[in-house]
Amino acid sequence: MAKVAIVMGSDSDLPVMSKAADFLEEIGIDYEMTIISAHREPDIFFEWAKGAEERGVKVIIAGAGKAAHLPGMCAALFPMPVIGIPMKTSDLGGVDSLYSIVQMPSGIPVATVAINGGQNAGILAAKILATSDAQLLEKLKAYTEKMKKDVVAKDTKLKKVGYKNY
Amino acid sequence: MAKVAIVMGSDSDLPVMSKAADFLEEIGIDYEMTIISAHREPDIFFEWAKGAEERGVKVIIAGAGKAAHLPGMCAALFPMPVIGIPMKTSDLGGVDSLYSIVQMPSGIPVATVAINGGQNAGILAAKILATSDAQLLEKLKAYTEKMKKDVVAKDTKLKKVGYKNY
Amino acid sequence: MAKVAIVMGSDSDLPVMSKAADFLEEIGIDYEMTIISAHREPDIFFEWAKGAEERGVKVIIAGAGKAAHLPGMCAALFPMPVIGIPMKTSDLGGVDSLYSIVQMPSGIPVATVAINGGQNAGILAAKILATSDAQLLEKLKAYTEKMKKDVVAKDTKLKKVGYKNY
Amino acid sequence: MAKVAIVMGSDSDLPVMSKAADFLEEIGIDYEMTIISAHREPDIFFEWAKGAEERGVKVIIAGAGKAAHLPGMCAALFPMPVIGIPMKTSDLGGVDSLYSIVQMPSGIPVATVAINGGQNAGILAAKILATSDAQLLEKLKAYTEKMKKDVVAKDTKLKKVGYKNY
Amino acid sequence: MAKVAIVMGSDSDLPVMSKAADFLEEIGIDYEMTIISAHREPDIFFEWAKGAEERGVKVIIAGAGKAAHLPGMCAALFPMPVIGIPMKTSDLGGVDSLYSIVQMPSGIPVATVAINGGQNAGILAAKILATSDAQLLEKLKAYTEKMKKDVVAKDTKLKKVGYKNY
Amino acid sequence: MAKVAIVMGSDSDLPVMSKAADFLEEIGIDYEMTIISAHREPDIFFEWAKGAEERGVKVIIAGAGKAAHLPGMCAALFPMPVIGIPMKTSDLGGVDSLYSIVQMPSGIPVATVAINGGQNAGILAAKILATSDAQLLEKLKAYTEKMKKDVVAKDTKLKKVGYKNY
Amino acid sequence: MAKVAIVMGSDSDLPVMSKAADFLEEIGIDYEMTIISAHREPDIFFEWAKGAEERGVKVIIAGAGKAAHLPGMCAALFPMPVIGIPMKTSDLGGVDSLYSIVQMPSGIPVATVAINGGQNAGILAAKILATSDAQLLEKLKAYTEKMKKDVVAKDTKLKKVGYKNY
Amino acid sequence: MAKVAIVMGSDSDLPVMSKAADFLEEIGIDYEMTIISAHREPDIFFEWAKGAEERGVKVIIAGAGKAAHLPGMCAALFPMPVIGIPMKTSDLGGVDSLYSIVQMPSGIPVATVAINGGQNAGILAAKILATSDAQLLEKLKAYTEKMKKDVVAKDTKLKKVGYKNY
Repeated sequence: MAKVAIVMGSDSDLPVMSKAADFLEEIGIDYEMTIISAHREPDIFFEWAKGAEERGVKVIIAGAGKAAHLPGMCAALFPMPVIGIPMKTSDLGGVDSLYSIVQMPSGIPVATVAINGGQNAGILAAKILATSDAQLLEKLKAYTEKMKKDVVAKDTKLKKVGYKNY
Repeated sequence: MAKVAIVMGSDSDLPVMSKAADFLEEIGIDYEMTIISAHREPDIFFEWAKGAEERGVKVIIAGAGKAAHLPGMCAALFPMPVIGIPMKTSDLGGVDSLYSIVQMPSGIPVATVAINGGQNAGILAAKILATSDAQLLEKLKAYTEKMKKDVVAKDTKLKKVGYKNY
Repeated sequence: MAKVAIVMGSDSDLPVMSKAADFLEEIGIDYEMTIISAHREPDIFFEWAKGAEERGVKVIIAGAGKAAHLPGMCAALFPMPVIGIPMKTSDLGGVDSLYSIVQMPSGIPVATVAINGGQNAGILAAKILATSDAQLLEKLKAYTEKMKKDVVAKDTKLKKVGYKNY
Repeated sequence: MAKVAIVMGSDSDLPVMSKAADFLEEIGIDYEMTIISAHREPDIFFEWAKGAEERGVKVIIAGAGKAAHLPGMCAALFPMPVIGIPMKTSDLGGVDSLYSIVQMPSGIPVATVAINGGQNAGILAAKILATSDAQLLEKLKAYTEKMKKDVVAKDTKLKKVGYKNY
Repeated sequence: MAKVAIVMGSDSDLPVMSKAADFLEEIGIDYEMTIISAHREPDIFFEWAKGAEERGVKVIIAGAGKAAHLPGMCAALFPMPVIGIPMKTSDLGGVDSLYSIVQMPSGIPVATVAINGGQNAGILAAKILATSDAQLLEKLKAYTEKMKKDVVAKDTKLKKVGYKNY
Repeated sequence: MAKVAIVMGSDSDLPVMSKAADFLEEIGIDYEMTIISAHREPDIFFEWAKGAEERGVKVIIAGAGKAAHLPGMCAALFPMPVIGIPMKTSDLGGVDSLYSIVQMPSGIPVATVAINGGQNAGILAAKILATSDAQLLEKLKAYTEKMKKDVVAKDTKLKKVGYKNY
Repeated sequence: MAKVAIVMGSDSDLPVMSKAADFLEEIGIDYEMTIISAHREPDIFFEWAKGAEERGVKVIIAGAGKAAHLPGMCAALFPMPVIGIPMKTSDLGGVDSLYSIVQMPSGIPVATVAINGGQNAGILAAKILATSDAQLLEKLKAYTEKMKKDVVAKDTKLKKVGYKNY
Repeated sequence: MAKVAIVMGSDSDLPVMSKAADFLEEIGIDYEMTIISAHREPDIFFEWAKGAEERGVKVIIAGAGKAAHLPGMCAALFPMPVIGIPMKTSDLGGVDSLYSIVQMPSGIPVATVAINGGQNAGILAAKILATSDAQLLEKLKAYTEKMKKDVVAKDTKLKKVGYKNY
């Protein structure tokens, strides 16, 4: 049963949303992935969002660009955390998506991550689930260790070959 | 039977939305006015928006601030024009509201007016209805004449008293 | 007789403006299309804008970039709705065009759509005309159904092939 | 034992942070509240952040303004979710705080809420804990119902007294 | 005969435009001052702008706010220099006015000064006329000397009383 | 003897500045063109700017990018009009250049044109000189006619071939 | 002999610049304070900036607003570090000052601090001098300890009285 | 013994940071270069930053992008000057990095240079060290002379070949 629902309004958002899915697979969390549009098919969207809790979903990750309403409308209909990913836009760089997602009114928060922050959305979902899952928390700590080692390895290489040959 | 529906998410938007109502009253167009929240009561909002056409509404004027989803969600549910008014916000001046309303995806336009542009939303609604109402069109032309005279009167005063005594 | 006039200041705006024309053709609305500059040929522009009503035009769609005056000047001269399309600009992304079109003073609204929102301008024009044309309204509802199906088809494909093979 | 830690870099942030605390009290979640500066006392901050897990903290709510590093540094040291509140700033309106909090690099997400979004940070913390606490989830749903009723009451008043007497 | 025409769209711009007039009076240049709206009375505006050259006007100073079209439309109709003053706006600080004035298309320049830069518009008009008026140029140089002395006097005071007693 | 001095801080600005020179050549105005840096060679710059009047220069066109000081420092040293061209920048699009040029303090105006507005700077210089040169004014009017014809030709082509074959 | 020169273009900058002076007095560093305008008195400014090294100045702190050229022109004339303070502006919040100071071209850096960051400019000047002054470095460390204690005291108060009585 | 420490959070910053190193090599200042992440390995970072003084470091140059915390956290831990380089970002152009670095709170300054200003960071470090190193100061003056000659050479070429053949 999927604990995390990944949802996007358009298949053009797939490259960014895939990074969230990649992380959830790596860390071993079940998820579902859906293309659904709050604007183009509001009825279908409503049923989907209202049914998420019953399907066992604990966290929704929603990505959207421009006047990005999808995350906020998920948060209006789903009682647990919604993570919003603002998509980069070709004209305004994604500041439009960011404002449309993060500036939610009192009562209806969306947990917003960076523009195009697909991977971070996946990690945040895992951290949320880790508040009640000690095993998952250990996996996240191991992931953090791995990140640490990656940086150390880069520094070691720099020290060894010098910046001119890096 | 109301031809225009004025809707806002919070009573704090009332001073701006009232200017739309004032204009519609002045020009003689029936309207309804509602406080409804797409975020806080999505079910009620859905019923309201989907029922608008049947109630005889031809144009919706929706005002909202910050991550302003109300106009866009109206446009997803109502088949005729939706006019969006971005509210000025205390932190970002209203650029967040503006982007959240105007940057709608292909297929679902919102006719956006200026930040806090309550009166212009009323005028735009009247202009839309005037595309099929010759009498209303005449009233709008008379209103335009009145605006013209107001500017002329100000210039006449300036010419008469000089800028230091204006 | 054209009900919608599509106007742009430069032929460089043609790719965006064409999307408005494409939609009007698809939905079956007569339109005229003109390149005219409020800045470079103000007299010609004045005559054109003031004559639009008499030619039967009900809605003007005007696109412009940078210090985009064309939509606002149309709104000053034409008594029915003017839809403004802010062009994306290479330096400021189109935020200059957007502000120059949407921030109109009281009395002279421009119904502004998204940056480069050519198709949405066409749809909005159709929605305006649909306030008094039941047949057109049905066509618009059918178009909405088609959009809905397109999203459903994408989701079905995603569910079938998975995001890695999409 | 506090499940949520509320932390801020300066007592000038207290009016916003208090709204998070108010909500947690209302909904019945234990919290601790601390003034600590990642910049002015990095050693104390490090110990505090690294000890949070052991103290039983499941979620950190961190507020900061300008070059707001506190939420991001919490996220670097604490393995479960960190919620960031960008403070409004007198010169840039809070867009500096927002960018400094939301634009985190891959691997270290901060769940960002709106500028000055103290209450929403409290609600988001509760939603996170509700992913494993059915009783808390019920309380959140009751809260949502209450919000719904508040909007309905406002609309009822508007319908009754009219916008001119509201 | 007025060599400079000062024009504004609304009497709310008068405090800023007056500073241009004040400077022209001080330096001894004849000017006319007019309230005229390109949006609300385009016919009157057209006649005024096209007649300016014949009235002896050499430079137009035009101030406008928000979607500020007045300076650009003057530049479309008047063959000599047009100076544009972007008005500060309550929501966007005047960046909307600035973009609407300065980002003119090729062929139709507007000489833009700072937001609310009334005095600088007056000085720039004088500098333009001074390209063919040696006496005026001497007056401008004297004005520059006066500015220099004002700064020196302030520094002398600071040196004398110290910053704590300034 | 050059009446217009074109100056830039770096040869990377040459493509934009060349458009100003092209226009001055076309309209028959003598100019000088110089690469000079207010930052890298302030002494040389000072001598150059202070000597411009004596060399017969009536207008300076200065282009600069980023923290663009060159136009403002010219205006501090040269008593007649200085036209500033903000260069597009790869990171901020040129809004940095624009603010650094247009937001001059009281007393020292810079006549600012659009970002990368090389041609418009040339036209503005010509308009300034035309305030005292009837022959040049006629040439400018002829140029305006030519622009008008270019737009008319484009519209004629559009009408003839249709937008799909344009 | 003054080691730090504090300079501003206008006495309106004095409240911010005073905070730099206050810190230098507190930490015991000799300074001079001057009102000088690169725009209004370029000759005086040139002599002042070029003479600074000979007067024993090691660091210049320059504050300026809007098209803030003073710090950059100091950096062009003085061979040691120049610290720039962008002034908050009433229309653009200081983002104009910030861009005009920080976006310097290659070769001529300005060490920029926060908008209105008077005190931080003083501290940075002290840190620069502390690179060769062990005694001053100790004083700076003591100052850091004091800041740390101030935060601890605030937290102690919060813990004692609670946020509702703070 | 390295007097300057160059530090970056990711090897993707290396092209910009290398320019700082290039300048330090050219001018003959010893430096160390490190890849270290305040977010991904906070413990390692803490030890590194706190040990810098003992290693003989007098100035830290830190580059970072997006929610760029590295320079500010260095400034919290190192008692002498920290120079911050905001990295250009693909979505927001680097304004996020700039705000996150320059808008530091009172007490903890970061000497910020332009977006991607690697070379200027190197020059600023040298200028700081030159406050107590007369020989280095001479080298910097020679570098300034060289820059001057480069500009003069470009102008000479322009004068010789003309802008069309440059």
